[in-house]
Amino acid sequence: MNILDIIEKKRDKKELTKEEIEYFVKGYTDGSISDYQAAALVMAIFINGMSKKETTDLTIAMAHSGEILDLSKLNKIIVDKHSTGGVGDKVSIILLPLVASVGVPVAKMSGRGLGFTGGTVDKLESIPGYQTGVDIHNFVKNVENIGISIISQTLNLAPADKKIYALRDSISCVESIPLIASSIMSKKIASGAQKIVLDVTVGSGAFMENIENAEKLSREMIEIGKLSNRETICVLTNMDEPLGYSVGNSLEVIEAIKFLKGEMIEDVSQVVLELGAYMLKLSGIGNDINKNKKLLLENIQNGKGYNKFLELVKNQGGDISYIENTEKFTKAKYIEPIYSDKKGYLKEINAKEVGKIAGNLGAGRIKKEDKIDSSVGIILNKKVGDKIEKNEIIAYIHANQKEKLETAKKQLKNIILIVPTKVEKLQSIIKVIK
Amino acid sequence: MNILDIIEKKRDKKELTKEEIEYFVKGYTDGSISDYQAAALVMAIFINGMSKKETTDLTIAMAHSGEILDLSKLNKIIVDKHSTGGVGDKVSIILLPLVASVGVPVAKMSGRGLGFTGGTVDKLESIPGYQTGVDIHNFVKNVENIGISIISQTLNLAPADKKIYALRDSISCVESIPLIASSIMSKKIASGAQKIVLDVTVGSGAFMENIENAEKLSREMIEIGKLSNRETICVLTNMDEPLGYSVGNSLEVIEAIKFLKGEMIEDVSQVVLELGAYMLKLSGIGNDINKNKKLLLENIQNGKGYNKFLELVKNQGGDISYIENTEKFTKAKYIEPIYSDKKGYLKEINAKEVGKIAGNLGAGRIKKEDKIDSSVGIILNKKVGDKIEKNEIIAYIHANQKEKLETAKKQLKNIILIVPTKVEKLQSIIKVIK
Repeated sequence: MNILDIIEKKRDKKELTKEEIEYFVKGYTDGSISDYQAAALVMAIFINGMSKKETTDLTIAMAHSGEILDLSKLNKIIVDKHSTGGVGDKVSIILLPLVASVGVPVAKMSGRGLGFTGGTVDKLESIPGYQTGVDIHNFVKNVENIGISIISQTLNLAPADKKIYALRDSISCVESIPLIASSIMSKKIASGAQKIVLDVTVGSGAFMENIENAEKLSREMIEIGKLSNRETICVLTNMDEPLGYSVGNSLEVIEAIKFLKGEMIEDVSQVVLELGAYMLKLSGIGNDINKNKKLLLENIQNGKGYNKFLELVKNQGGDISYIENTEKFTKAKYIEPIYSDKKGYLKEINAKEVGKIAGNLGAGRIKKEDKIDSSVGIILNKKVGDKIEKNEIIAYIHANQKEKLETAKKQLKNIILIVPTKVEKLQSIIKVIK
Repeated sequence: MNILDIIEKKRDKKELTKEEIEYFVKGYTDGSISDYQAAALVMAIFINGMSKKETTDLTIAMAHSGEILDLSKLNKIIVDKHSTGGVGDKVSIILLPLVASVGVPVAKMSGRGLGFTGGTVDKLESIPGYQTGVDIHNFVKNVENIGISIISQTLNLAPADKKIYALRDSISCVESIPLIASSIMSKKIASGAQKIVLDVTVGSGAFMENIENAEKLSREMIEIGKLSNRETICVLTNMDEPLGYSVGNSLEVIEAIKFLKGEMIEDVSQVVLELGAYMLKLSGIGNDINKNKKLLLENIQNGKGYNKFLELVKNQGGDISYIENTEKFTKAKYIEPIYSDKKGYLKEINAKEVGKIAGNLGAGRIKKEDKIDSSVGIILNKKVGDKIEKNEIIAYIHANQKEKLETAKKQLKNIILIVPTKVEKLQSIIKVIK
């Protein structure tokens, strides 16, 4: 077998065999296949596509290119939850302790985000003391003891995916459904998931900007799940405006804590309950989605979800006094309101732009090495569809630097669209695809 | 402008602008665009194609990526002749002095071949003393003085083409008509051609294995010629069997000398006269192709072509006693005949295979640094269509090493196909495309 023949085959729109795909993934990971040869193959895949079988073979090969998290010791069905990314996405911080409180084991190894705001692990680290660098032995022990652990990616999971992803980024080959699908699913498989619930975000702040592509991506991932024996369900959720009110690391943690304490926000609530209900279903707790939602809702109302979160934080070394009293979180130096300059209805507050503004304030990282500023970000006071009076507060900017604050103010004002006629609220759950 | 947008555009089958193509060629030549980005773009070009305008823009950009041979001092129309490559191709050695003898100025800068046998320059170097490394000043002077000079590529012509060609070779992107066409034409333009006659070979020993692709390539090159104001004519010639009888460097030179002395071989003669007649036409000597052929034929019969060759060799330091008496050329150590094992007609003697066998004997080079063995090669005694008796000699192998000789004997026997029924001779000139 040689890479020239493999490139030629895909160039000519032929189907690659499992062996050929494995040959490529192995060779590219170990460096025996060059970047330019991989680039040619990836471009040919981008243009000529891949069959479901090829996509699955690529997924499995990438999943097995590094270490695999072995959760068999737990002797339980491990249901993983993953989001294709969004702005203000604090769902995992709420959802994972909540399902754990119902009895679904949560063994979550989460990557650090590259993007507007940090990933789940970065957000949890804004809780003083919370340890994300737990070794695998203790990680599994935690899950056995209290039913939940959320740590950072300490294993070398799917290195082929990392390498191919970085390459795609530098050769304009990101937006390919089979390549996105195999990238997501390879990481899920490498991190030990047996069943998977995917939050496929759709809209201005998401990877998939329209429903059609989000559906395609979902069907592709469900098919990979089927062919690799990992049942997968996709929930398409709205990401045209930020999820909830807060965008920024500790700001989102605070919103999540309040949510678990019962201050439920409409859109976050819908997403949490929908995803959670399907996690319960996949883990064998019950097939009735409405009953599952009720179970979850009860555990918010009776405090069991909140208590599980306290237990998680305590167990991983975090200072729970911050959870009990969120006023203890360090606040940004400047907290400034943005006022509306007219009366009307909030028509648009572009999620991607809000994300960018938060990122520029210091909430995200551009390079891996960048440090995140936990306390900065944006807290919205209004959501799309809300009625607004003139001079009413639409949002607050939390900043630690004066110039950044000024820039953010200008930018944020620019992306707020208020119209005189009534505007419908956005629908959080677009569709469930099984 | 940035390379990611350019890649994306071609990936999505859009037409690149002249500026974008220039940006790519410049950036790839100076190293600011990486191999993997170039690989992605080249693959996208391979799959999605290029418009005539794009192909021409690429050609011109590559032609101008290095030095350009300036022949304006000569104040004459410079007609270049180029072959897409073949086995036993000694046409330039005959044709160039011949057209020069009629008054067409020949200023030929020729590359060294990578392949089965050497290029024209390698072949000429088998004449003791012949200098191919002449500087541009003396090169132009030679043309002014005696109307002809043939030297090796002393300028850095079209370096972008060299880099892109090497890349294409390592990413399975060689067989693309627009990329082949722009590669050939960029070198022609960089070497100062104003009008171009192309010998587009077709068949087993050629780059283009069938007429359809050869026609496509021809039309593409003619179009580039039109758009870049360089009239181009393509002559499609047969390359299913080797051209003439000899394959190997000094062996081909000897055949060429004998031809110029009047020992005209049928297929070589047809190709030389056809190409030559069009060179005469393009240089303004006359539009009547048959008259032009007659003019050339006369200059063989009256010895003017041969004398021009003698003048060329003498002028470039070559020992003309070798031309006057070809017996002086160093002979290979072993010269062994191959006999037919049955009676019949020669149906096939695959040009590519003959080329490979000659290459293995030492007539060609695989890497740039390889040294060519001038005296080795193959001399056919029969051509396709010839009647053959049992035990008659079909070919001679000229070798300098015993093992190589033995290998070549076996290989050559294997590719000779003799059939009992009459076989037509191959037609040398397939088509002329203007």
